[in-house]
Order: sequence, then C-alpha cells, then structure tokens
Amino acid sequence: MLSSVREHKVEGNALNELYKKRFNQVRKRSRELCSTLETEDFVIQPVIDVSPPKWHLGHTTWFFESFILKEFMEGYKEFHPSYNYLFNSYYESVGERWQRPNRGLLSRPTVKDVMDYREHVDHAMSDFFQSVEINQEIQKFFEIGLQHEQQHQELLVYDVKHILGINPMFPVFREREIDPEPYGELDSSFTEIGEGIYSIGYEGNDFCFDNEKGVHNVFLHPFRVQNRLITNGEYLEFIESGGYKDFRFWLSEAWTWVNEQEVKAPFHWHKIEGKWKYFTLSGLLDIQVDEPVTHINFFEADAYARWAGKRLLTEFEWEVACEKIEPEVSEKANFSDKNIFHPEASNRTQFLGDAWEWTNSAYLPYPYYKTDEGALGEYNGKFMINQMVLRGGSCATAKDHIRPTYRNFFHPHLKWHFTGIRIAESI
Amino acid sequence: MLSSVREHKVEGNALNELYKKRFNQVRKRSRELCSTLETEDFVIQPVIDVSPPKWHLGHTTWFFESFILKEFMEGYKEFHPSYNYLFNSYYESVGERWQRPNRGLLSRPTVKDVMDYREHVDHAMSDFFQSVEINQEIQKFFEIGLQHEQQHQELLVYDVKHILGINPMFPVFREREIDPEPYGELDSSFTEIGEGIYSIGYEGNDFCFDNEKGVHNVFLHPFRVQNRLITNGEYLEFIESGGYKDFRFWLSEAWTWVNEQEVKAPFHWHKIEGKWKYFTLSGLLDIQVDEPVTHINFFEADAYARWAGKRLLTEFEWEVACEKIEPEVSEKANFSDKNIFHPEASNRTQFLGDAWEWTNSAYLPYPYYKTDEGALGEYNGKFMINQMVLRGGSCATAKDHIRPTYRNFFHPHLKWHFTGIRIAESI
Amino acid sequence: MLSSVREHKVEGNALNELYKKRFNQVRKRSRELCSTLETEDFVIQPVIDVSPPKWHLGHTTWFFESFILKEFMEGYKEFHPSYNYLFNSYYESVGERWQRPNRGLLSRPTVKDVMDYREHVDHAMSDFFQSVEINQEIQKFFEIGLQHEQQHQELLVYDVKHILGINPMFPVFREREIDPEPYGELDSSFTEIGEGIYSIGYEGNDFCFDNEKGVHNVFLHPFRVQNRLITNGEYLEFIESGGYKDFRFWLSEAWTWVNEQEVKAPFHWHKIEGKWKYFTLSGLLDIQVDEPVTHINFFEADAYARWAGKRLLTEFEWEVACEKIEPEVSEKANFSDKNIFHPEASNRTQFLGDAWEWTNSAYLPYPYYKTDEGALGEYNGKFMINQMVLRGGSCATAKDHIRPTYRNFFHPHLKWHFTGIRIAESI
Amino acid sequence: MLSSVREHKVEGNALNELYKKRFNQVRKRSRELCSTLETEDFVIQPVIDVSPPKWHLGHTTWFFESFILKEFMEGYKEFHPSYNYLFNSYYESVGERWQRPNRGLLSRPTVKDVMDYREHVDHAMSDFFQSVEINQEIQKFFEIGLQHEQQHQELLVYDVKHILGINPMFPVFREREIDPEPYGELDSSFTEIGEGIYSIGYEGNDFCFDNEKGVHNVFLHPFRVQNRLITNGEYLEFIESGGYKDFRFWLSEAWTWVNEQEVKAPFHWHKIEGKWKYFTLSGLLDIQVDEPVTHINFFEADAYARWAGKRLLTEFEWEVACEKIEPEVSEKANFSDKNIFHPEASNRTQFLGDAWEWTNSAYLPYPYYKTDEGALGEYNGKFMINQMVLRGGSCATAKDHIRPTYRNFFHPHLKWHFTGIRIAESI
Repeated sequence: MLSSVREHKVEGNALNELYKKRFNQVRKRSRELCSTLETEDFVIQPVIDVSPPKWHLGHTTWFFESFILKEFMEGYKEFHPSYNYLFNSYYESVGERWQRPNRGLLSRPTVKDVMDYREHVDHAMSDFFQSVEINQEIQKFFEIGLQHEQQHQELLVYDVKHILGINPMFPVFREREIDPEPYGELDSSFTEIGEGIYSIGYEGNDFCFDNEKGVHNVFLHPFRVQNRLITNGEYLEFIESGGYKDFRFWLSEAWTWVNEQEVKAPFHWHKIEGKWKYFTLSGLLDIQVDEPVTHINFFEADAYARWAGKRLLTEFEWEVACEKIEPEVSEKANFSDKNIFHPEASNRTQFLGDAWEWTNSAYLPYPYYKTDEGALGEYNGKFMINQMVLRGGSCATAKDHIRPTYRNFFHPHLKWHFTGIRIAESI
Repeated sequence: MLSSVREHKVEGNALNELYKKRFNQVRKRSRELCSTLETEDFVIQPVIDVSPPKWHLGHTTWFFESFILKEFMEGYKEFHPSYNYLFNSYYESVGERWQRPNRGLLSRPTVKDVMDYREHVDHAMSDFFQSVEINQEIQKFFEIGLQHEQQHQELLVYDVKHILGINPMFPVFREREIDPEPYGELDSSFTEIGEGIYSIGYEGNDFCFDNEKGVHNVFLHPFRVQNRLITNGEYLEFIESGGYKDFRFWLSEAWTWVNEQEVKAPFHWHKIEGKWKYFTLSGLLDIQVDEPVTHINFFEADAYARWAGKRLLTEFEWEVACEKIEPEVSEKANFSDKNIFHPEASNRTQFLGDAWEWTNSAYLPYPYYKTDEGALGEYNGKFMINQMVLRGGSCATAKDHIRPTYRNFFHPHLKWHFTGIRIAESI
Repeated sequence: MLSSVREHKVEGNALNELYKKRFNQVRKRSRELCSTLETEDFVIQPVIDVSPPKWHLGHTTWFFESFILKEFMEGYKEFHPSYNYLFNSYYESVGERWQRPNRGLLSRPTVKDVMDYREHVDHAMSDFFQSVEINQEIQKFFEIGLQHEQQHQELLVYDVKHILGINPMFPVFREREIDPEPYGELDSSFTEIGEGIYSIGYEGNDFCFDNEKGVHNVFLHPFRVQNRLITNGEYLEFIESGGYKDFRFWLSEAWTWVNEQEVKAPFHWHKIEGKWKYFTLSGLLDIQVDEPVTHINFFEADAYARWAGKRLLTEFEWEVACEKIEPEVSEKANFSDKNIFHPEASNRTQFLGDAWEWTNSAYLPYPYYKTDEGALGEYNGKFMINQMVLRGGSCATAKDHIRPTYRNFFHPHLKWHFTGIRIAESI
Repeated sequence: MLSSVREHKVEGNALNELYKKRFNQVRKRSRELCSTLETEDFVIQPVIDVSPPKWHLGHTTWFFESFILKEFMEGYKEFHPSYNYLFNSYYESVGERWQRPNRGLLSRPTVKDVMDYREHVDHAMSDFFQSVEINQEIQKFFEIGLQHEQQHQELLVYDVKHILGINPMFPVFREREIDPEPYGELDSSFTEIGEGIYSIGYEGNDFCFDNEKGVHNVFLHPFRVQNRLITNGEYLEFIESGGYKDFRFWLSEAWTWVNEQEVKAPFHWHKIEGKWKYFTLSGLLDIQVDEPVTHINFFEADAYARWAGKRLLTEFEWEVACEKIEPEVSEKANFSDKNIFHPEASNRTQFLGDAWEWTNSAYLPYPYYKTDEGALGEYNGKFMINQMVLRGGSCATAKDHIRPTYRNFFHPHLKWHFTGIRIAESI
C-alpha cells in the first residue's frame, strides 16, 4: 500500500489541513470527556456491553495506529507489541484479540499507559499530517477513524453512566444547575405524512456509513407521527397504571424479560422511600416529568406505544418524517455545549439530538447494500441480525455526527444508552 | 357467550357439515402421523424447542376443548381438571400453565390418557356438530383450531425427527424405497422480476392468519431469483471449500454460534469414517447430492448465499416471485402422499412444499396489522421480534396449509425444521 | 481370563446353587418393583441425579453381561452392540459412554427392549449356572453385581418417587392403608457411650464393600445419642419457629442454598391452602407427625441439630452406638414386606432400616483403604470427595443389604432419598 | 457494652502498649505489601474468589471500626455511612452487604478514599490506645482483628498474583535476583511415626482460632511421611508421563474438572514454544525444578500422590508429624524478609512456611468445638462443609501467623494460593 503514497512536506494540502484540524478536535473531545473521572472509573466493566473507559481511549487510538500509521506511514514504530491484541475490538481480519467479556480484567496497561499511547499516536499523526499527502484512500480511513472515535465518545458517556450508576454511592460526573421552570406547555400534536414513494438513504457528498448507502425507494402508506418524544411523566402513568404487570402490552420475549428480570422502571430509576428518582450524570435527582423518558429498551418502547393505543414508526417512516419536519439539528439542541449529557425538555418538534428513537424496523441491509473491502467491511454489515434500528441521535452524540439517515442499532433488550419513544399511527 | 348460540338439531347446516368433515380429516391425520411411534417416543423433550409428541396431541385437543366446547357447548364436561394447566402452551389469558422447558418431565398423563382425551373431545365434537349451529364467531375458532392442529402436525414431524435423530441407534420412523435415479439434469436458471409497486398480503376469501392481513404496497427494485433450491451437493462444496471456517461469510452472531457450537454441517448430518451421511425419518442414509439441502439455520443460509456471491430474498421479493412463477402447489409435490417427510429433488421451479425458505426479512407487522381480540390475539403478533420469516411450506406441511402469502417464522439459530436456501441478486 | 474357568456341567456345586438362587431373587425383585409403573414413567429424568427406571433395569443387566458373561462364558453373544455404550454408568475402564445428563433423552431402547435384554441375560445366566463353575474370582463379580442391583433397586424407588412427585397429578405408586393409631408415646431418651478406643470397619465373613474394609481403631470421647430419629412433628416446630429464616443455624453454603432455592420444607412437602401435606408413594397425604422426618439434606439435618442445641454424630460414633444399641435389623422393620416404601413410626430405638442418617463425617478412605483392581476399583474410592456419610439403611433398602458398617454417601445438598436426623451431644 | 469500659488516660497499661505496637506493625505491613501496585491493580476482581486489593484494605479497616471503635470507643464517628455496607464480607449479624461477586464492579470508593479510611481508623485507634483500657473482652477483638488482617495480607498476595498473572503483559510485582545454584542434593527420606493415641489441637496460652480448640485424642496407625515437599521437577514427571490424561489417578469430580477445564498444569504455568514457564510475582520465569511445586489444587495433590504410589496425610497425621519433626518455623524460612513471595528450595525437612499442604481431611469440627458468640461466631464454623484442610503456612503467611495446629481450609478445586504436596504411606 505504501507505494501509492508520497511522503514529503505536504503543507498547504487542503485535505491534510482539514483532517489535521478535525483530528485534533475529535481527539481533544475524548480527553475532555474523561477529565472528571477518577483513575478507578477507567477500569470497570460492569456488564459485557459496557467497556472500561480506558479501553475506549486505547481502542480508538489503536484504530488510527492500525489503519493509518501502520499502513501509510513508512517507518512508524508501534507503541507496544501487545496493544494490537489488547485493543482490537472485533476485527477478525486484524488477528487474535483479547475477548470482550474480559475487558474489565486488565489492570494493565494503566490509564497513564493509555494516555501515553494516545500521545504517542497523536504525535505520530502530527508528523503524518506534515509528511504524507492524504489521498482518497487514506481519506476513507481518516473519515471512518474520526466517526469511529465519535461513536466511542458516545458509548463512553453511556458506559461512565453505567459504571457510576450501579455504584451505591451515586457519584457525580458533571455538576449541573437545574432550571426550576424549564418547560412551557406540553405540545401533544401530530404531523400527517401522506402515502407515496419516498427515497431512503444518504444522498449528499459528506460522510455517511455504508449502511446508509444504497439509496432506494419505499412505498409508505399514510400515517401520523407525534411531534415530540414521550415524557417521563407519561411513562410514569404507564408504570402506575400497571403497565409492567399486564402481558397484553408486551411481546412474548419482552414479557419473559420483564418477569425474569423483575423490571419495574427504566434503567437508572430507583424507587426510594416510595418516590421515583433517577441517577443522572449529575447524581441522583428527582425525576423531571416533562423531560423525554430515556433508558428504556425496545421492549418497553413497544409496550408503551401499545398501551397508548399507538405504535412505533418504521425506520423509513421516521426518516421521511424527520426530513419533512426537522431535517437539521435544532439550535435549541444545546446538549454538547452544556456537556451534562442529559436530554432537554421535549415540548417541541425535535427529531435530532435528544434521544435515539426506537423504530419497529429490524437492522437489515438496504437493497443495494455492499460491504466495504477488508477490515472496514466488518464495521456495520456483520451486525445485521437480531438488532433494531434507532434513529435521531442523543444528547451524548457529537453534533456533527447526527443526520436524518443515520442508522444506529442495538439489541432490543438493551437500555443503558439514551433511548426515547416517539409514537405514531396509521391513517 | 352461550346466549348467542342456538343449540338444537342442526343437520343440514352447511358449515356444520363442512367443519365436521374437515375436523375429522385433520384429527385423523394427527393420529396417523404417530402410528409408528413407540410409547416412549411420545415422552421425550431433547431441547426446549421440541415438545414431546403426546404434548402436541394433548395441546391441539385442549385447543378445541377450551375455545369451542367450553365456550359454546352448554353442559360440556371437561375431561380432566389438570389438563388446562398442563396443555396450555403460551396463552397468558387462559391462566397459569406448566412451563415449556419442563414438558419432558411429565410421565403422566400417559399416551393412553392423551388418546382417551382426544377421543373424549372428538366424541363431544361429534355431538357439537349435531347440536350447535356454527355461526361466524364459532367458525373463526374452528378455522384457527384446524390450522393450529396442522401446524402442530408439522412440528410433530420435526420433533419426532429430532427425538429419533439424537438417538445413537437412529431408529426408522417410515420405511422408504429410494429411487436410484430420481433426478434429471440440474436446472440452475434464474427468473427476473422487474421494478415496481407490488401488493403484499392475503386477499382471497379462504382462511389466512392475521399476520398475512393488512394488504399493502411495497416498492421493489429489480432482482433475479434462482428457480430452485440449493442442493446438498452445492452445500457440500461450501463445506469442503472451508465455508464454516472463514469469518467473512458469517454475520457476527453467526460466527460466534459456529465457533461455540463447533458447527461443521447441517443438523442431522454425521461424518462417519470420513463420509457424510444424514439421518432421515427412514434412518441413516448416504447424502443424496441433488436433493435440496435442509436443516440449515438462517445463519447458514445467509453464509451460503454470501459464499456464492448472491443474497437471500426479502419476504416481499419472495412473495412476488412465487406469485409470478408458481402460485399453486405443484402436482409434483407429492410429499404428503408418500408420507415419508423428505423433500423431493430440486431440479425444477418449485416454491411451495419442499422446504421453508429463509428470507432476509425480520418477522414484523404489516402496516395495518391488527391483533385479534382475546386469546387468539396471542397467536402471532406477540412473536414479532428477533425472528426471521420463512416462506413456502415444506414436505411436512399439510398440503392445504400452503399458500404464497403464508409467513412462517423462527429464530435465526434454529435448524431442526425442514429449511432451505434460495439465492437471488439485485439487478 | 477364560483359561482359568472350567466349563462343564457343574450341578451340585454349592456356590453355583447359592448364586443361582440369590441371582434369581434379586433380579425378580427389580421386576416386581416396577410392576405398577406405566411405560412413560420408565423414561423420565427430571434432574441429573435421577435416572430413568428403564436405565436402572438396563444398567444392572449390563453389569452382569459385561463383568460375568463376556468375561467368563465362552461363546456368549452380546444382546446389542450399542448397549455397552448406553448402559455403562461411569466405568472409564469399560470405554466410552452416553453421558449421565442425557439419560432422559433416549426413547429407545424401549421398555420392552430393556425387558428383552434382561430376559436374554437372565437366560444366559441360567446357562452359566449350569456350565461354569463359580470360583473365587467369579464370586467377587457375582457378589458385587448383586449388591449393585440392590443399590439400584433403592435408587429406583427414590427416582420413581421423584418422577411421580414432581407431577402435578401426584400419581399413586403403591396403595396403602394408613393405620389410624400407629404410634404409642414418643420416647425421647438418650444412650450414653463412654470414652475409649473402638474398632471401626467390617470384620465378618460375608460381603462388604471395599470402603468398609481397613478395620482400624478410633478414639472416641464420650457422648450421648438419641434412641430414635427426629419426627415430622419436631421438624415442623423447627419450620414454624422460623428455622429456615435464621442464618445462625446454617452453614454458609447451606444458607446460600436455602435462599437461592427458597427452601421452606423437606422435599415432597407441599403447603396447600395453609396446611402441610407430603407426597408419598401412596399419593399426597396429610403429614403424620410421629413418623421420622425424611427427604431432608445434610444442610437441613445439621441446621435442625443446631436449632435443637445438639449436633449430628460422626460416622464412627454412629457405628459404635449402633453396634451397642441395635446391631441387627429389627423384626419391627417390616418395610420390605409391606412394599410401600415409607418409614415406620420412630418411637423406638431403631438404627437400621428406617432412614439413612446423615452423619457429620465426610466420605473419606479408612487408613488402610485399598481400591480393587480394574473396573471394580471405580466402584467406591473415586467418589471420596465433597460427600457426607450416611448410615443405617432405609425403608427402601433391601433387608439383606443393611449392616452397621455400611457407608452410604451423598452430596450434602441432595434430598431425594429417604434421609433422617438423629441428634447427639458430647458429654 | 460501653458501660464496662473505662475511658481515661491508660498510659502504662501493658495490654495497651502491646496491642498498640502490634497494631501498628500489622497495619504497616498491609500498606507496604501494596507499595508497588498501580492504582488500577487495586480494582480488579478476575474471579469470584479473588477480591480487589482495595477491598482487602477497606475490609480489614472496617473490622477494627465495626468491632472495636464503634463498640468500645464513646463518641467515635464512622468514616462513611456506606462503608459498613460495602466492606462487610460475610457477617450476617452485621447487616446487609454488597455481594462478593460484585466487588470488582465498584470504582468508588477510590484507592485514595480507602487509604483515607485507613488513616482515619488508624488515627482513631491511636486515640483509643491512649484513652480506653483494653480488658479481656476487647483483647479478644483485637487479637482476631490482627490475625484477620494477617490472613487478608496473605490473600492479598494471592489475589495480586492472580490479577497480574492473567494479564498477557505479565507485570512484575517484586524484582528478584535468582540464585543460580540455590539447591544442594535433593533429600528424599521419610520419617516414621508410630501407632498410638495423640493429642490434637492448640494447648498453649497464645492466640489460636476457635477451630483449633477442643483439644482431643486421636488414635493413629503407624505411617511414614516424606521430609520435604514434592518439587516442580517431580511434578513435571507426572505431567510428562501423562498424569493429566489417565483417569485412574483422579477422583471422579477431579476427572470431570480436568476434562471440562482442559487442565494440563498448575495454575500460572504456561507452555510457551514447547517449554514450561511460570508466572511469579517477579514476572514470567523458567521453572526451577528443585523448588516445591505450588498452585496445585487438592485434586492434583491427590492425583500426584496416587501416581507416586503414595497418599496424602490426614490433618491429624500431619500435626503429629510436624510437632515431632519441626515444631517451630525454621530460621531458613526467610520468606517474609525477602518479600518476594516465592517458596524456597525443598531439600530439607521444612513443614512450616513454604506452602500450605493439602491434607486428605475434610474441614470439620473437633469433638468439643464451640463457636464464639455473636459476629465472631461466623468466623470459622460456618465454613465446615465441602472444604479440605491445609496445614503449614506459606511463603506469603506472616511469620507469627504460623503454628503446627493452624487449620487452613479451601475448596478442593481452588489453586490460586501457595499450595504444596507432601506424600506419605501407611506402614
């Protein structure tokens, strides 16, 4: 591969300037996200889905080292011979790896070791921007590498919330002042979308993942979609009217899950002396009834919708509705500025940036879907089974990582991320 | 409910005649299916998905007793007070039940008890046909009851094959003469289906399940579909070229499954002294290379298609192709007559009646899907998560139980049923 | 081996006559034990520790076929080539075997097949007694084979009770008339045993197992032992005073067991509409308060003793006390005649034949313990870890299988056998 | 309780001086043991039996806070309201607790928090020594508290070795210079012990645990015991002669364990490029053949002895042999000075201080055993089931924590501690 790359002074090359700037921004945000963590917080893996924060920091670094520095920078010296083994997540094509369930069993490399690793790679990248001209092939890896680190930033927020939230001492990650009167009147209106053939998938010139490609038509029958997410207050009604105890609202596997796990509320909710509270990244607080409910899984979103006499959207309906109603991230969605990682009030028509909205679509390939060659081909396609699509982006998503065509996906029982409910009905 | 039913001599009522005849036919087929079983074969539950044959016989009987005799026949005496508890499968609305994983732990009721139960109910039904006029409401329960028993007949064949197939003595269930030259030349042609809006779902006046209703449009992009199923011979090539050892063909969960279970071939295949054989209901035989491959799960069907450079169909593409190419069950599909439960040779364009074909569609509701009221509402809808749709019907399906719109569904890892692979590609 | 055996008419040989008679008696008892079972009852394995009755019948037959007929009878034809694989229990030296957890997954061989197997072997044994002179070596295998079948007869009773007892229909195995006033006044006296050196282990000329050999001395400090077993009524007091809810009475592993399994009473006890009943082999009955409590495990026996301010005996104390107080099976112990498999009332000094008494001794080798050569060496010694010794024999033990030195052993959590509690204290 | 304690200046009180000194020594050793750990090493719990080092540091501190400061020092302020919940190990009588399997899920309290906790309690204890006169009752808690912390120091060494040993980077905990010729000729002699009545249990005036009390007689038959432990070299012979592949040497549960876990060598042994190495606290090294083998469990010790044609000792035989051959800790046992936590060469008659020797005795009460009142009663007695006794003390045991009567105990499958093998035979 190296033969196709010219190594020399490349100052002034626009792509080099562009990626240097974005690279530094993205990498800096990862560091900043962790600034209030204790060393011990970086090590824990409470459940298999959660990774230790230091693993996220190492893995995102490994991505740049493996796919850019080792491939395209002559003479690059890898930081440590064990790190390819330790920080590979799931790339079968990149060799053996430490298994995911055991990520929390490694005290070494230490947090400092991982920070040194980041520094080493960032430093090498700084040389790279000076010496290697970024061509189209390299650009692809850069783009994925940056998006990838943004995805892990978001996971890192969920994982930190999980790690702190199961601790009986409920530590505070970000201090927060709660606005005593943040919400106006709750708008419960719906928007109608008419029958027709609609185009689905990403069509612009910016980055998108391979799973958004394969632009194609779908035929939609008419439907009506609510202009905001379901609130904590509405979800409390579901709980208090016995929603978790009535099989009629639940899919069969969901009902088994509710009963075996004895589920009574969203994740991070705690009934303390008869009163519901929730753990937030600002500690244990009273539940704010007008905020969008989060930390519910697909089973709960689906059951809520059924209880309400409605249904969830398909991912196609969602994409069409989003494009029509709110195709850009709203100015009001100031999540990433406040940096407290908590969704805003929902009395408005916000599709993008509050919570990932569960759709009733399974994560499957678009008609013309084609996986990338090589390791990047393992990025999305191989997960297209047993998962449900979520759309919209959350308060923990990097702002420039949100778009209407973005297809997020999780198994239906998972609920440690910022998930939300939007209801709809056929007309 | 009883108030709406007239009980008197109803001879001559056409619905009564119709259902009496069909009821007797269906019930008789269940008995006949089991005619060569030993008493001990009726008791075993080798894995959670398989039920003991006597359970199927009791459960289908319970269905008629619970939903017809108890509801619509005044003075009906239930056969045994424990049977509602023991033979309810998953109807939350019908009360507590013996749990599925424990079905193989019950030596009583004995097979004879269950046969007596069948006789008791059949006898009461005989009275019913004489005395209660079948109205539209009752008809609905009859129809479901009969379809339900046909579904269990098919499961019974799979389950018997499982029970006998894991026995190291490989008992014979049905003797069979193998035609030494059954197949002509293998036809590997494809049919093209053009782009367009197609109607999906059942539209006739006969019975269909609720999950086939909600007729609606889909937009299909053009594709090409093979006119037959993949054969054992073709699947052997996949195995021998290392298909089970190359991660690139497998979804991530599939790859974990292959490795954890050390899968090397379809279910019921055994490599004995270097040669592949398979257990059939006629005992352990040499593999016939021109027959359609069966007993593969979704993971394997999908991996095979990928290895072949093709893909599976969606259930919508499948329905459209079937309607176009072979909308009726072929005369050649003489499975149910021979009663040996083995798919025929595949050198022909048969969509209906050889093997259930895995599609790449998740089992989800159609846009206008509506569950039935009451217990029947638990029949289909609550399983719409984490399962994949299969289409077409198999050599174990009752012939009048097969139609192009029929949506079968199983979890993607399951493979004890007669499943097949049909490949396609986008144009 | 065959060279050492003379095959000819051996009528009149005393050992041949003796073993012919005993063989026929023991084999007959196995058949009789099963006489009221339904075919289906022979197939079930509700938990790993329980074997299907037909397995017991096959396995005991296999023992004679493998260790006597195949070894010592020229020209013997084995009944079926698969049966060595299917009916070997745990003899590593006899080759591969079907694994224990899967014994309930085999519908074939059928019960009839197994009965044919028994008949085949019994017939061959009849020839054997006519034609092969039983020497000392053969005698050893005969003796073990007969004792072995008696042990399995006892397990068969426990297993049948387990199989029927978990069935919600609580079937009756043996009809029984309950004596309305069976018990006199309860004798709660103790016997004192003085300090001294005592001899432990079997010293006679009859059969004993290798684990009873290695006669040796133990020094005992003085103690006092109750002359009867603890009754159901006494155990009920323990339950009702909160015994299962107070950690102070329980070993740490016992406490975990109680809480994880939510144990509230002996096995086979059911609280029905506020009243304790128990399943017996004669069906579900009111609990008889003056009978010895059974179906408690070591954890419960130990906790009861602690609650009563006493302790269990060691196996050495037990053997010494038994030899002193009741060295022979009492005439009153008429369990095997009644054939109802239920312990008698306990208001008397019976050590032998009511219930296996948990001792506080781990099952370990005696100082001079030596395992047998070959397969018989796998009979006892390899289980000498993590099990506790029980002494005394139960109402399901064959009468001539009971002696003061007999060492039974089970894991401390098991309770499906007829176990009892005898309390003691140091002086 | 406080009423019985005089609080005033107690300078000059001999018990106060004694315990002040010992307290400070013991507490200091805990800190020193951890001096080379990284913060991350304090957090991990790789398996349920291993606790995070910070948990050991917190728990031992909690012991003094709960049982001395809170009980006997008026006005003592507990450090943190959650710590009683978080640092209680298994004392049911002291209230609810964070469950053992989840100790590795807590990032908070941080290591610094725990160190502050230690300082807080040590400071309060310093006041305590000045102001509260230590009477007999308090003395009991002090003694147990100090022994308890010594036990946890030893566990801490094992746990650190486990945490570092499963890390593919094999970090060094203590640097070590290996003496190139440490061993003289291997002495393989045995000592004979004659038949007789021997006294067992602790009889002196110093501290011992309740499980050593109840001095009593045992009768021993004559035996012969080897004067040293089995070496790595001897154990390698066992491995290389197929010891792990021959069922005849293994107890039944052991054989299952070997096969299910695919065990091939002691814990911490790794075959790298065909050569056996082992992880030590000084990193990955070549195996020293003349050192005593360690990190074998009871199953392996027992199998080795059987392979060698010998047996293990009972704990009674061991105690008698130790008292006769080496009743005091040898001067040569300089383990605690070197602080490298590795057993010495074994060509000498050392019973005390190299490795805990598996005996073939189950951990059960002595005849006159009596548990303490209250929480201390949970210290030993409740573990007397399913565990085997080990005797002798290891290179990680505090020197003044070793004595011939000390009864250590572990489940037979565990092997992360410094365990050894001594063989014997009956005469």
